[in-house]
Order: sequence, then structure tokens, then C-alpha cells
Amino acid sequence: MDAEIIAVGSELLTPARIDTNSLYLTGKLNALGVEVVAKTIVGDDRDRLREAVRLAAGRSQIVILTGGLGPTEDDVTRDAVAAALGRQQQLRPEIVAWIEQRFARMKRKMAEINQRQAFVIEGAEVLPNDRGTAPGQWIECEPAPRVVMLLPGPPRELEPMFESLCVPRLERLLPPQVIRTLHFRAAGITESDLDQLIAPVYTKYSNPVTTILAAPGDIQIFLRARCASQAEAEALNAEVGPQIAALLGDRIYSRNGDPLEAVVGNLLRERGATLSVAESATGGMLAARITSIPGSSDYFSGGFLVYNDRMKHELLGVDAKLLEKYTAVSEPVAEAMAVGARRATGSTYALSITGVAGPGGGTEAAPVGTVFIGLAGPTDCHVHRSRFIGDRERVRALAAQTALNLLRKKLAGG
Amino acid sequence: MDAEIIAVGSELLTPARIDTNSLYLTGKLNALGVEVVAKTIVGDDRDRLREAVRLAAGRSQIVILTGGLGPTEDDVTRDAVAAALGRQQQLRPEIVAWIEQRFARMKRKMAEINQRQAFVIEGAEVLPNDRGTAPGQWIECEPAPRVVMLLPGPPRELEPMFESLCVPRLERLLPPQVIRTLHFRAAGITESDLDQLIAPVYTKYSNPVTTILAAPGDIQIFLRARCASQAEAEALNAEVGPQIAALLGDRIYSRNGDPLEAVVGNLLRERGATLSVAESATGGMLAARITSIPGSSDYFSGGFLVYNDRMKHELLGVDAKLLEKYTAVSEPVAEAMAVGARRATGSTYALSITGVAGPGGGTEAAPVGTVFIGLAGPTDCHVHRSRFIGDRERVRALAAQTALNLLRKKLAGG
Repeated sequence: MDAEIIAVGSELLTPARIDTNSLYLTGKLNALGVEVVAKTIVGDDRDRLREAVRLAAGRSQIVILTGGLGPTEDDVTRDAVAAALGRQQQLRPEIVAWIEQRFARMKRKMAEINQRQAFVIEGAEVLPNDRGTAPGQWIECEPAPRVVMLLPGPPRELEPMFESLCVPRLERLLPPQVIRTLHFRAAGITESDLDQLIAPVYTKYSNPVTTILAAPGDIQIFLRARCASQAEAEALNAEVGPQIAALLGDRIYSRNGDPLEAVVGNLLRERGATLSVAESATGGMLAARITSIPGSSDYFSGGFLVYNDRMKHELLGVDAKLLEKYTAVSEPVAEAMAVGARRATGSTYALSITGVAGPGGGTEAAPVGTVFIGLAGPTDCHVHRSRFIGDRERVRALAAQTALNLLRKKLAGG
Repeated sequence: MDAEIIAVGSELLTPARIDTNSLYLTGKLNALGVEVVAKTIVGDDRDRLREAVRLAAGRSQIVILTGGLGPTEDDVTRDAVAAALGRQQQLRPEIVAWIEQRFARMKRKMAEINQRQAFVIEGAEVLPNDRGTAPGQWIECEPAPRVVMLLPGPPRELEPMFESLCVPRLERLLPPQVIRTLHFRAAGITESDLDQLIAPVYTKYSNPVTTILAAPGDIQIFLRARCASQAEAEALNAEVGPQIAALLGDRIYSRNGDPLEAVVGNLLRERGATLSVAESATGGMLAARITSIPGSSDYFSGGFLVYNDRMKHELLGVDAKLLEKYTAVSEPVAEAMAVGARRATGSTYALSITGVAGPGGGTEAAPVGTVFIGLAGPTDCHVHRSRFIGDRERVRALAAQTALNLLRKKLAGG
């Protein structure tokens, strides 16, 4: 079965914005054995959108629209789809009531225009939205099987709606086929090195299909086996997965798709250990990732954001002479920061990060991108020096990722 | 004038790949006063691509195709465009010779299939490719002005070709037209309330066009005026912009698109003031945003991540009796955290955040989503209580945004 995705919104036609929903949806559809054959991005323009829907619905069995379900004049998706399918819309009082309740919970009154979001296309099933005021719509059309979906634009609304309401409906619609996915994540290796290492294995197999998705310092590897039965799909993955895992060794940090901060959190919890941080260059990014995991208060003690020399000295007890002699971006200061954070919080481990994120501030001894990461534990403290290439955000992201990965290796090895 | 971009290639329909060429092209076209009204991604499929070209060329004056100009069976762009426009193709011996020379320079022999790249659509101008074997094509159509461009997919081939060969041709084709944009950002108001407030103004004008883009706690408003001259475009924006700004009042925090953390940073710098933070629920997210701005060390002193009661007491001096009596998520503790951070760092201002981000941890007095934000300054300390709706990441993001906005108002007002 073929699918097309239509993203709606003039902001998606500007030079800086990309449509990330379609990437998420493509992954989910592929996992169901559905191929995406075209993607379209249309601005907030009723006529163009109507034409796009008519073309897509005329040739593909699954058409997914994202965005344009808001309450304003700009939000044209409902009208355009109704026009393309030649159907009417009805105001559903129960949806109005639901939106009103949502506003009431926030101690606010629903604005008149939010009524627009309660219009439903004839024959559509309403997909409730737990996280926003725009309900989705699921519309089955002739000749069956054929479906048009209207989903909200914000990923945090779209993703749970698609997962919990659309995937089960699609599974009923689709021919029986089982897909089993292995999801590895790796750190401490570049995408091209990783590809060179594992390509000799995965190119031998057309099933499972291997996909590699790289972000700074973090690579995800998906093996997707499509078979008539679960046993066959699992057998294929069991043949290929271990070969890839063996080549990557301890660079693989997750075999179930968990992010690095969750893996590190689990390792700390299992060992009854706690962690504190002392961040300079990353200014809170490392701790923000650690605390993004629910329950992280079990093992995260706290930390220090020490953005200048005085704070490093006063809050962490870094010797002023050390700062003067070596500067803040140095191995001895990284070590003193980690040791100081551990002492002040009483945590089992402490991570410190000091570096030059740029664009300014580089020196000959520590050019932009230089980062020292300290890891203090019960018996020792090690400092790791890196030189990251990229802009400020990339350097900071890589520093946080590298710090987490150092702790993971320490915990897994010890 | 309107443009559409069609990216060709099945690899662009996988979960991990994005079409970056269209972002580059959109930037260049906008600079010429051309708006991109739709983008399409089609796989290597002759029929679907022919339909897409026919639709685009039927309604937009500029159609740009990227990719699909290679030598293999998969490379369908030439054939699909020729079919859509109802034109023939001719083999051009001089292009064959040119491709052969290119191979010869690399000490290789041209493969037979590369001849395909020497086919040119009737009436097209050939755009030489300095960096690859696929020449581009520039095809003017009726009714003039109307043009279809075929460009190679690799950015390093496409970008110089577009810049040096297409931009000058487009400039000759285009009516003199200038685009000027106003970019406001607002906080402390929901999208629907904002829209209700300003729609009476912006709906009166078709030029400038108003676009609203909402993220949690942060709304962007773009006014884009398209005119024959810069003076006219600026005059239109100067007519509409202030009306919208007046309605929104101090909810507008930026008139040039700067994010809130940059605006707060500038206010602090102008006043020679410094800031520290004490974060519990947000665990570093607030500081990570503040320090994402280059030069933030001028005003960011540092901070404390106090993720449990002991740290709140030991690092910030929050009275243990206060914690026991009111719990950590309370107004007195938020106040004590802000005052403690300010005292420990000697900063002019301090922001504290304590709350229940969820999903667990809610109580009757402080259900999930409850957040207290403290703001301590030289003369006073205020605490703001919020109840945010949403998941853990949303509650944390809204808490950080609200804290920054409280400080902005304090600085702007004081």
C-alpha cells in the first residue's frame, strides 16, 4: 500500500523550517510495510491544498495531512479536505464542550474562534487530542481500502495520536504482514566510520532492511525484518543483529532505542549510585538531559553552573592559583570541578564540563571547540580532552553527549 | 511571482533524509522577491513526477526540479518534464563530447549510459555543470513569464549552478519587487487569544501577509510586505506593524525575531546587571537557554541545580523547617531558593524554579504541572505560581519560558 503525506503551513515554506513530522510518519508507515511515495508541503492556501488532496487521494490509498487544524482563518485543512472529497462539515457540540472543558481546566474561557476546531467532515471518525485543542479526523473513502487522515501539526500532539489511534486502525486495514525492528544506538563513532564497519554485513541482506540515522555524537541503527510471520521476522533479526552488534562492541549503548540519558540513569539506579554535575560551557544542557527522564531524582543529586572563574572558585572550591596558571579551560580545572561537585553534593560520581563553545573565546592553547570533561568517582578522577568541530550548539551538544558516554562506559565497565 | 520546488528521488522519502536543497532555494528565491508556494517530493517514478510537473507548471510561474538527472534508469526527471510539457528530447553531441572529456580528465572512460545525460528538452537552454556530469536545463514556456528549471541534486553542484546561471536569468524575468518582513515574538498569551486580539487588524490587509507560528509559551508573528519598491514595502509594514504591537502591548518581547533568552541577555547587559539561577524541576533547561547565547558569560553568573531537599538546604541555605512545613514545591521555598542563589553568587537577580514536572510526584496541594518561579532582585523577591498542562517536557519548557518572561518584564519595567 502507498501513502502520501501533505504538510500544511506557510511557515514550512520558509528557508529555515523543515517538515519533521513527515520523517516521523515515514518511519511509522515503513514499519507497517507502507511506502511513502510522495510528500507535499502547501502553504495556508485553500485552493492549492484542495488540489493537492484531490491529486493524492486519487492515486494513493493512504493520505495523511499534518497541520492547519488550528482555530484561525489561516487553518485551512478541514475546509480544503472537505472540498476535495466533496463532503460537508458539521459542528459537533460535544467537541465544543470538550474544548471548553480543556480551557476551563486551565482556568480560562474558550475563545469564540476555537469553535472552528469542532467542525468534523461528514463520515469522519474523530481522533481525540490529549495534548491540544485540535482533534484529528480519520476518513475512509471509496474505493476501499482508502483513508484520508487529518492530524495536528505540533509533533507532541501528532505523535501520540498517530501511535495510539492511527496505527491500530491502519493495521486493521493492511494485509497481514509482520515487521520486527531492532533498534541499536551507538556513541563515540562517526556515521561514516560506523557505516564502513557494518556495511559488509548489512549489504548482504535485503531483509531485514538496515537504516542509519545520525545526530551529533549519536547514531541510531534500525534493522527492519518484514515477513509473513513473527517467527520468521525475529529469526532474520536474530541472524543479522548480533553480527552488527559484535562489530560495534561497546560503542553500542542501547539495544532498545533508549536515549543515552536513560541508559546512564538505569546504570546509576542499578548500582545505587548518585550523580552530580559541574557545568561551564554546556551551562545546564547536561543536567537538562539527565533530568528529562522521569524519576531521575532517584539518582541525580544536583549540580553547579559555574560560568566564570569566581563561581568555579567559590562554589566548587577550585583553587584560584590553578585558574590563574592553567585558565578555566584546562585539565586541572576540569578535575578540580568534578572533585569539588562530588565533595559538595556527596554524590557517588560527578561529571564536569569546561570548554570553549565559541564562536569567540578561543586561544592558541584551547581553540574553539576544545572541551575538557572530568569524571570523579569514589576511587579516582579522570579528565577527557576533546576538540569538537561545529557551531556553538553543536559543540555544546557533543560535550554533553560525550560526558554521558564516558560515565556510561565507567559504570558498565566497573 | 510564485515558485514551486519539486525534489526528485526515492531516497528523499525515507525516514532519515530531508530535502535541504529546497531550503537553500527558498532563501535565494525570497531574496529575489519570489515566494515559494508549494514543495513536493516525488520518488523515482515517471508518472507521478509528470503529474506533479503538470500541476505545478499549470499554476506557478517558476518551477524548479532538483535531482533525477543522473545516468541510470532511476533518473526520470528529463523524461517526466518532457512528457508534462509535451516536448521532445534531442541528443546533443557536444554534451556527449563534454561528458567524455570530463571522464577522460579523471582517466576513465565514459560509460554508455552517461549518454542519457546529454538529452536536452526541446527549447531548453543548457546550464553547464562545473562539478558533475549532469547539465541543468532552463526552459521558458508559454504564457510568459514562465520557466521550468532542471537542476542536479547534489548541493555542491546545484548551488553554484543556481547562483551563477539561474539567479541572473530570473532577475531579467522578474518584475521589480521587494519583500520586507517584520518579525514579532510574544510570550504570556495563547495562540488563540493572540489571534482573536489581532485578527481584526491583520485581516484588513492582504499586503503585508500575516503568519502566526506558535510554540509552547512562545508565539511568532511575521508581517511580510511585497511591493515594487523598498519604500512602499516598508511603508506598509510601518502602517500595520504598530497597530498589532499596540494591541499586544508588553506581551511582545522581540521586534526582530530574537529569542527570549537573547532579549533578556541584552536587557541585563544594558543595565550592567547579572543573573543566577536555582533550578529544581527544569534541571538546567533555563540555564541552558541563557547560555546558548554567545557572550552570555557577560551577565550569567552561574547557578544551582538542586534536585532534592538536601541540596536545596546545603547549597542554597533553604531552611529545613521551611521544606518540612511547606514541601519543596511551594511559594516560601521558591523564594528562599532565589534569595539563596542571589546571595551565594552575588548576582543582581536570581531566578528559581521548583515544581512538579510529572508524570509522577503530584500532590493535592501541588498537582502535576504546578510550578513556582521566584525572582529575587536588589530590593525584593516575588514568587509566581503557574499550573501548566502537558507532559513532562512541555511543563519544563513552559516553566523556563515563563521564568525568562518574568525577568524580562521586571527588567523592562524597572
